Amino acid sequence: MELRLAFIGFGNVARAFARLLVDNRSEHEIKYGVRWKATAIATARHGCITSTAGIDLGEASVCVERGDNLTELPESLYAADAISVIKSCNADILFETSPLNAIDGEPATTHIKAALERGINVITANKGPIAFAYSALKARASQHHASFRFEGTVMDGAPVFNMIDACLPGVGVFGFSGVLNSTTNLVLTGMESGRSFEDSLAEAKRRGIAEANSDYDIDGWDAAVKAVALANVIMGAEARPVDVARQGIRSVRVEDLEEAARSGMTIRLVARGKRIADKVTLTVTPEMVPLRSALGSVRGTSNVLLLETDLMGQIGIVEEEPGVDQTAYALFSDMLQIHSRLNC
Amino acid sequence: MELRLAFIGFGNVARAFARLLVDNRSEHEIKYGVRWKATAIATARHGCITSTAGIDLGEASVCVERGDNLTELPESLYAADAISVIKSCNADILFETSPLNAIDGEPATTHIKAALERGINVITANKGPIAFAYSALKARASQHHASFRFEGTVMDGAPVFNMIDACLPGVGVFGFSGVLNSTTNLVLTGMESGRSFEDSLAEAKRRGIAEANSDYDIDGWDAAVKAVALANVIMGAEARPVDVARQGIRSVRVEDLEEAARSGMTIRLVARGKRIADKVTLTVTPEMVPLRSALGSVRGTSNVLLLETDLMGQIGIVEEEPGVDQTAYALFSDMLQIHSRLNC
Repeated sequence: MELRLAFIGFGNVARAFARLLVDNRSEHEIKYGVRWKATAIATARHGCITSTAGIDLGEASVCVERGDNLTELPESLYAADAISVIKSCNADILFETSPLNAIDGEPATTHIKAALERGINVITANKGPIAFAYSALKARASQHHASFRFEGTVMDGAPVFNMIDACLPGVGVFGFSGVLNSTTNLVLTGMESGRSFEDSLAEAKRRGIAEANSDYDIDGWDAAVKAVALANVIMGAEARPVDVARQGIRSVRVEDLEEAARSGMTIRLVARGKRIADKVTLTVTPEMVPLRSALGSVRGTSNVLLLETDLMGQIGIVEEEPGVDQTAYALFSDMLQIHSRLNC
Repeated sequence: MELRLAFIGFGNVARAFARLLVDNRSEHEIKYGVRWKATAIATARHGCITSTAGIDLGEASVCVERGDNLTELPESLYAADAISVIKSCNADILFETSPLNAIDGEPATTHIKAALERGINVITANKGPIAFAYSALKARASQHHASFRFEGTVMDGAPVFNMIDACLPGVGVFGFSGVLNSTTNLVLTGMESGRSFEDSLAEAKRRGIAEANSDYDIDGWDAAVKAVALANVIMGAEARPVDVARQGIRSVRVEDLEEAARSGMTIRLVARGKRIADKVTLTVTPEMVPLRSALGSVRGTSNVLLLETDLMGQIGIVEEEPGVDQTAYALFSDMLQIHSRLNC
């Protein structure tokens, strides 16, 4: 079976994923029996196309990077927008990587709903839909016998959701704590060495880790959306980002970090989820943590997530200096899971 | 389908696993459709029995803990030894948890071979067979269409092999480093606070972490056998424990730890595997590592494993203060994997 792939959004993550697919095409066919063709790409600024013959993903990437319109590609049909692509494309898997909207998770949620309703399997790297509509999307997927996977939404490609799903069956998660946002951790790590907040943030922007408008990271929204995604998926919560008791890192001063260091501590922006009775409480706040701890030893852009479980005690996952290739890998690992389900 | 379970070895790990099964019998049936009965138990000191009606695992545990012989249990048939149990039992899954023999991996390897040759799926928590005969056992398993699983052999129940297998498809591992032995880490952590080697080891024995004869841990054999198991399974090596450049922690002095601490470092017994050309080099040695690092921040009986990969960069798994219940969980997660394969 040849998997037909549709892309909603064709930014950095989707193009890194396309590279992974194209560069390893024959190896993936030999090792996993995976054959594929791209049948649709929808973007906000470079047009939307479908093709039954198959789109050359390498050419499509070059076209987008050059700033051209995808409709210039051969044998492709113009489409009006993402929704019309989703409603008309012939696809087995749809990759939703449109930009995150942290206010309401749209339009990604609408895209995913529309695809699932057509029975198309969906893979997303977009946290919004998980934070705003997870249980509805999950119900939609199961009603239409489609898969809905989202490994790339938290900790890039490090196996979080897939690990809990595939490797920790029967384990109940009653809490978690983690350093989940790279920008704030890079800033705090910079401030540990005495640099100012502003210099450390400028450095994060120069390295391409922080966005031009970094408020979303600095004020803890990114970590909050990830905490909500974790709570909704692995703890069965019905939380929304506004439910998170959230404080960013603006109030942290270099002197606070110096003082913490004197007693073997440091400050990290820690996301926590905790089940209390049948409610899940979520916080994202700067916390004093021991320098020598899983949370305190994670530096720079690295992430860590610790799970508190019943059968397995505390287990943690650490991801060192992740980048866009790791998120691309998350899409790929989700694609292989769907491929084996389809061939089971 | 009712899974018929055979136990070779019925020590602490097997009995903790039996408790997990018995205590959650109806939940496991409802949630996973898992139904089971125990049809054989072989021990070295408490006799060997088989039963078609099914053995009460709770009663069997009480019997062993009381020091009695299993043949006293109702409706059970006496068997001469483990091998005759394996050759005659009616079992779908055999749990091999006989004591580790670090010299040659026997008799566990022979037990596992015999079971796989009868097409019986095997789950083991015993590192020996993986360190001494992994590729032969794997070939035997595939030849007889049986599963061979061993999640509990490294880092107790933390998903290592299952995570790589199920959640990191297509990822090549070219190296690893880890703190894999609880006894030596507990001793080094004790020495960090100024206690002597002897006192720290005595404390580890008092807590039941170290064996009466702790040479196997202290001299780095346990970590070496685990390093070999990792290398053989996740890096395709054909290594044996004698191939590991191994040095235990006897030479480490409290003063060394004090001196290390002055420059923000500590000492850990680190197991490393590295692919150089097409050979895997393995070491287990005390190493200076930064206090603030994944390796340096792991304290007491906790373990950490960092994987160096191609597609995913460095990712790590941390297990806090594991115990026998975590190893029991590893057997259970392997059992669920086999159950879903049998029902696929």
